[in-house]
Amino acid sequence: MDTVYSEGHAVHHASGELISGEFKPAFEMPQRAYNVIDAVREVGLGEIREPEKHGSAPATRVHTERMVRFLETAWDEWVAKRGEIDAFPLIWPSRSLRDIEPNDIDGKLGFYCADAGTPITAGTWPCVSAGVDVAVTAADMVLNGADSAFAATRPPGHHAGKEIFLGYCYLNFTAIAAQHMIDAGKKKVAILDVDYHHGNGTQDIFYDRDDVLFVSLHADPMEVFPFFAGHADETGTGAGEGYNVNMPLPLGATWESHYAEALDRGIEAVKDFDPDILIVSLGVDTYEHDPIGQICLKREDYARIGEALKGINKPTLFMLEGGYMVDHVGVNVVDVLKAFDAATV
Amino acid sequence: MDTVYSEGHAVHHASGELISGEFKPAFEMPQRAYNVIDAVREVGLGEIREPEKHGSAPATRVHTERMVRFLETAWDEWVAKRGEIDAFPLIWPSRSLRDIEPNDIDGKLGFYCADAGTPITAGTWPCVSAGVDVAVTAADMVLNGADSAFAATRPPGHHAGKEIFLGYCYLNFTAIAAQHMIDAGKKKVAILDVDYHHGNGTQDIFYDRDDVLFVSLHADPMEVFPFFAGHADETGTGAGEGYNVNMPLPLGATWESHYAEALDRGIEAVKDFDPDILIVSLGVDTYEHDPIGQICLKREDYARIGEALKGINKPTLFMLEGGYMVDHVGVNVVDVLKAFDAATV
Repeated sequence: MDTVYSEGHAVHHASGELISGEFKPAFEMPQRAYNVIDAVREVGLGEIREPEKHGSAPATRVHTERMVRFLETAWDEWVAKRGEIDAFPLIWPSRSLRDIEPNDIDGKLGFYCADAGTPITAGTWPCVSAGVDVAVTAADMVLNGADSAFAATRPPGHHAGKEIFLGYCYLNFTAIAAQHMIDAGKKKVAILDVDYHHGNGTQDIFYDRDDVLFVSLHADPMEVFPFFAGHADETGTGAGEGYNVNMPLPLGATWESHYAEALDRGIEAVKDFDPDILIVSLGVDTYEHDPIGQICLKREDYARIGEALKGINKPTLFMLEGGYMVDHVGVNVVDVLKAFDAATV
Repeated sequence: MDTVYSEGHAVHHASGELISGEFKPAFEMPQRAYNVIDAVREVGLGEIREPEKHGSAPATRVHTERMVRFLETAWDEWVAKRGEIDAFPLIWPSRSLRDIEPNDIDGKLGFYCADAGTPITAGTWPCVSAGVDVAVTAADMVLNGADSAFAATRPPGHHAGKEIFLGYCYLNFTAIAAQHMIDAGKKKVAILDVDYHHGNGTQDIFYDRDDVLFVSLHADPMEVFPFFAGHADETGTGAGEGYNVNMPLPLGATWESHYAEALDRGIEAVKDFDPDILIVSLGVDTYEHDPIGQICLKREDYARIGEALKGINKPTLFMLEGGYMVDHVGVNVVDVLKAFDAATV
């Protein structure tokens, strides 16, 4: 399996995040992707390619034009007001507050960004622009006949919705890749999200559509981030009814307890859909030692995931999502990819 | 004019707030109320009384039962999970996210609290309980025939809505006082909010009602906090249509430029309503040296506000709201109250 990767991700490094009642160093950091690429090299997974340039057009196919323009211009607007420190919101238009875009940059941040862990930094736009290039280039490899490809994007993207960003995610690289495949003429794309957290952004983007199936297994959002999406009763709307499948897992789930069974159900849902292409939102924050996650997969379980996914028997694009035990993120990701490559259908 | 005050406020002192991109010491602090009471004493405004105990029943007349119970129990729930540090949310159910109350305390915080500056501290519940006592006791003084009274509550309350809290505010003492007057048989209560920030919570609570008029002059929310409420087109709904009057002021407004004219219009709206009682949400963060505000009233303008309010010629309850230039908050507040007392109708 070949990998697409750009060093361009490294210019985005958030100064911190408000989490657990304190402003702490950001869990999401450049070293995550470095370790993934090191692991890819170490096992000789395949070629590592630079992406082609694609501009922001693929992003505006799944995000609103005004959100993409906001991400492009927010840093300059913020620096003019506040100076060169990371741009965090301070209030959010939740509950009875009104869904209106203010003029001021402090207000705009809360309008577009739903958490206190996803700041706009000096490097955010160049970083996520590189991510779009990586996603589309890897999608093209699969469109052009590769059995599989790996888009080593950073930061993750699956929390970014049509016009909202959160959870370290700014643009939804997985959704951008899926839409690119649809735009290239594919009729059906399935996204299987195995990140610890629910992919609320991917769900948001495809919620009313029947051409992109979204299946997610994740820690129960009644208990963990993102809390406000990912529940089992969210099944799609309109034409998309039935094409959104959420499988919340109890905290403490292991391969033997809940995980393998849910993965099987997710794989069956994908098979029933019979997609032209499968995209896997590959987060490894399900790891037992992840500092954020509370699902307890062991090292050897990642190869099992890779093998199981091969059984779907479709051209497959892997997209890097979360995983915050930095020293292990590379080996766990590569274990999935190696096992996928090695498995026979 | 007599004042109601409880030292009970002082047990709430937030460790900080996420503002302007940084986690900074909280602008809202106990010294604000101490300085107000010192100023009341210094000018001999009148008697300073301890409040009667009223429990949480008056709060549940304007806030949902479950939010009041959350405020009462959140600290213990948080400490059990995170230890004795202030409880801040990390994600908010804004925009396309779902309005669902999670089980977990981190999620519940984001569900009820809309910003990153209004943490639950060890002292929050006893502090705001004392505030309810102060508000109701002062309301009773006016109900019992006093021409005026001053409720020296802290923290402010006007950002707290039916089931949402933010902006340093947890319970809406002004709304609690207004509702207490209605419950005591008054037919019409007017609230005039002169705090720098829009009183989105008070608006939220009375938005569909014609027995409580809400009139607010404040900095334009397209430019400043709370951003997502306080716009001129928010005029009430249902029976409340026409009973909500927002007058956003441009940043940099002075007494001569915009302020006096808006205050006159607000006063005319109150006079047209002809209330039984007037409640003034008295914030002095309109002061030219306020560290948060960007409206430029001078010291002498506060006496002008007091004189102008006397012209309404109704029994009047003053409620302390914002004002963050700590050394001046007392004198500016007392200038309003003294001038009100001294003015002739």
